[in-house]
This record gives sequence, structure tokens and C-alpha cells, in this order.
Amino acid sequence: MQKRLKINMSVKGQLLVISGPSGAGKGTVCKALLQQNDIWISVSATTRSPRVGEVEGINYFFVNRDEFLKRIDKDDFLEYAEVYGNFYGTPKSKVFEVLEQGRDVILEIDIQGALKIKSAYPEGIFIFILPPSMEELKSRITNRGSETPESLKTRLEAAYDEISFASKYDYAVVNDEVEDAVKKIESIITAEKCRVFKIKDELLGRY
Amino acid sequence: MQKRLKINMSVKGQLLVISGPSGAGKGTVCKALLQQNDIWISVSATTRSPRVGEVEGINYFFVNRDEFLKRIDKDDFLEYAEVYGNFYGTPKSKVFEVLEQGRDVILEIDIQGALKIKSAYPEGIFIFILPPSMEELKSRITNRGSETPESLKTRLEAAYDEISFASKYDYAVVNDEVEDAVKKIESIITAEKCRVFKIKDELLGRY
Repeated sequence: MQKRLKINMSVKGQLLVISGPSGAGKGTVCKALLQQNDIWISVSATTRSPRVGEVEGINYFFVNRDEFLKRIDKDDFLEYAEVYGNFYGTPKSKVFEVLEQGRDVILEIDIQGALKIKSAYPEGIFIFILPPSMEELKSRITNRGSETPESLKTRLEAAYDEISFASKYDYAVVNDEVEDAVKKIESIITAEKCRVFKIKDELLGRY
Repeated sequence: MQKRLKINMSVKGQLLVISGPSGAGKGTVCKALLQQNDIWISVSATTRSPRVGEVEGINYFFVNRDEFLKRIDKDDFLEYAEVYGNFYGTPKSKVFEVLEQGRDVILEIDIQGALKIKSAYPEGIFIFILPPSMEELKSRITNRGSETPESLKTRLEAAYDEISFASKYDYAVVNDEVEDAVKKIESIITAEKCRVFKIKDELLGRY
């Protein structure tokens, strides 16, 4: 069970939690968002072995099982999960260090992880990236060329299930054109910085 | 007492309700917003006489008292108030006609009116425009040259009182530079169109 985080009032940055079914293009959208804005993306820790081409600190922080379990005990994960015998987790201390500096942070994370973070830190901004249509999703997954008819069917069914979770998020952004989706997320970031319930103490104290 | 409006699900446009103390520059911000976006601004009806330079349908719809009272009976105002013996009201039918066409609508309105609309139509987006500081507000009001020291004092005190109502709004936008304030409001409009609770039925029905 995740603990409810104590909110440090000095946290000025915003935590953006971004999910979506595979094929929605959330990776591409996050990459473009990072290129065009001063946002920091959180890198997960995992106990699984690096795959070919994966770089420490870019794709993951690779740690051994003992180290991971120690960090669970020290409450150093915003969320973590065990999948097929490997642990995956979002390191907490670095995320809050960056947020306290006033910089926004992105977590690109699966739905289960996002929902755990939502319980622990509802102040986050939860954004769900959607494909324009199921036909487009199918065509994007097919064009990768790496799917058999069976695995395509499985992935599309998984995508259907995942899309039903969009209703648990704050915002849904349809990724028709990447630049358009990026602009929408930038607008969400700007708008959230104007939300009265977030800023009233600091803002109204000025007058 | 205002009645809670029945929401017509065909309403696709967004109602932006904009208030702020005098000197915050909400008129200038609304004007720039209208010039740069396809938004319709609602014009109030009033029973007071036109002042020099005021144009029917631009500044106000000027109606007589009988006509105004009949329209109150027909429930044709989103909100109305009597101030120094004159009635002022926001015509409802035209606002919803435009919203149903999918166009966004601005109401630039005083705080009491805005709060009445919030009870009747909480789906609206309630934005409070703030001056960068009380010093700047004082300087803006003074530079108009139309204030005596007493009236300046009264207006500044009124502005203080009004600013405390910002916490009843959804968003607060500091009008430091007009273009910057306009961009923030445009971001709020874009972000609100991505809010899951507003779009989930229509959006998730697609998949």
C-alpha cells in the first residue's frame, strides 16, 4: 500500500504523470515535450538486466535485487511493482528534489503505476494519451512489423482495456499530430499553474 | 435565487466568466482575446439610459423596465441585479444558442454576477484577472487622471475587497503583460477541452 505523501509546501514544480496504451505514441510525445520545454523526465529503477542498446540512467537505473529491496524499506519509491520476477520503481527523492527546484517533472508510466501515484500524490497532473482511433492504433502497431496476428490481437485487446482507464485521469489528449498533442500538454501545464486552489496562498498573499 | 440550469448535452462551447477588480485590465485582456480567437462575447441588457458614445448591442442592449421585468418572469437571464435603481442582466437564450453551436462565450462580469452564474452553471470556467501588484493597480487607476484622492482611496479599498474573492474562481491570471495574460487564458481554454470529466462520454465512445 502506498503512503499518502506529506506535501512539502516548497514544491513549486508540477508532476506530470503520462500514460496511454502502446501505439498511442506517448514516447514520441514525451520526447518532443522534453526537447521544447524545461522539463525533467524521471528514470525508473529496475532489477532486470539491461537489453542491448539500453543505457544506465537513460533507459533505467539498473540495480540489484538487494539494493532495490533496501530502497523499498527506506520508502524511496513513489511506486513500484514486481513484473515477471523483476522489480520496477520510480525513485522518489530525485523527483521531489527537482520539483522543489521549481522544475516540472514527467513520469511516463503504466496505468497501474500511475494510479498508485494518484493515491499517494493527487497534486500530480494525470494525462492519458489516446490514439486518434482504434484503426489508427492497429495500423501503427502493424507498421512496426514485429507482431504476429496473435500478438497483434492480444495488444489491441490490451489497448481496449487500457483505454477504459482514461476516465481515472485528469486530462485526455488525442495524439493525432504529435505537435498538436505537445501544444495541448503545454497548455495543460500553463493552465494548471493558474489554478486558484494551487496558488491562492502564495498569490493572494502578494496583495 | 438562481435556478440550477439543466445541462443540454449538445452544449459544446465553453462559457468563460471573467472578473477582476477595476484597474486589473480585464477589458483590455478580453478585447485582445476576442481579436485573436473565435469567441463570442455576451452583451448585457440594462434598463439604464445610454451614456454618450454607448452603442446598442455593443455596450448594452438598452431595454425598458417593463420589458426587463417580463424577461425576468420568462427566466431569460443567466443572472441579473438591480444597482441604484437600474437593472442589469445577462441574456440566457443567446449565450446557450452560441454555446450549442460549439463556439466559446465570454462573460465579462462583476463578482456578484459571476458567483450567481457559478451556482447556476458550475460547468463554466471562472477566471479572475489580477493586477501584478497593488502598487501597479494604484498607478493604473491614478494614470486615468479621473480620480480625486478620496475616490482613489475608495477604489483601492474596493479592489482589496474584490481580490479576496479570487479564491472562489477556478483560475487566477495575473495581467502583467496583456499578451501573456491572453496566452494563459488561451491555454486554460485548450486545457479545459482536454478535461476527462467533461469529454469522457463523447471521447471514450469513439473506441
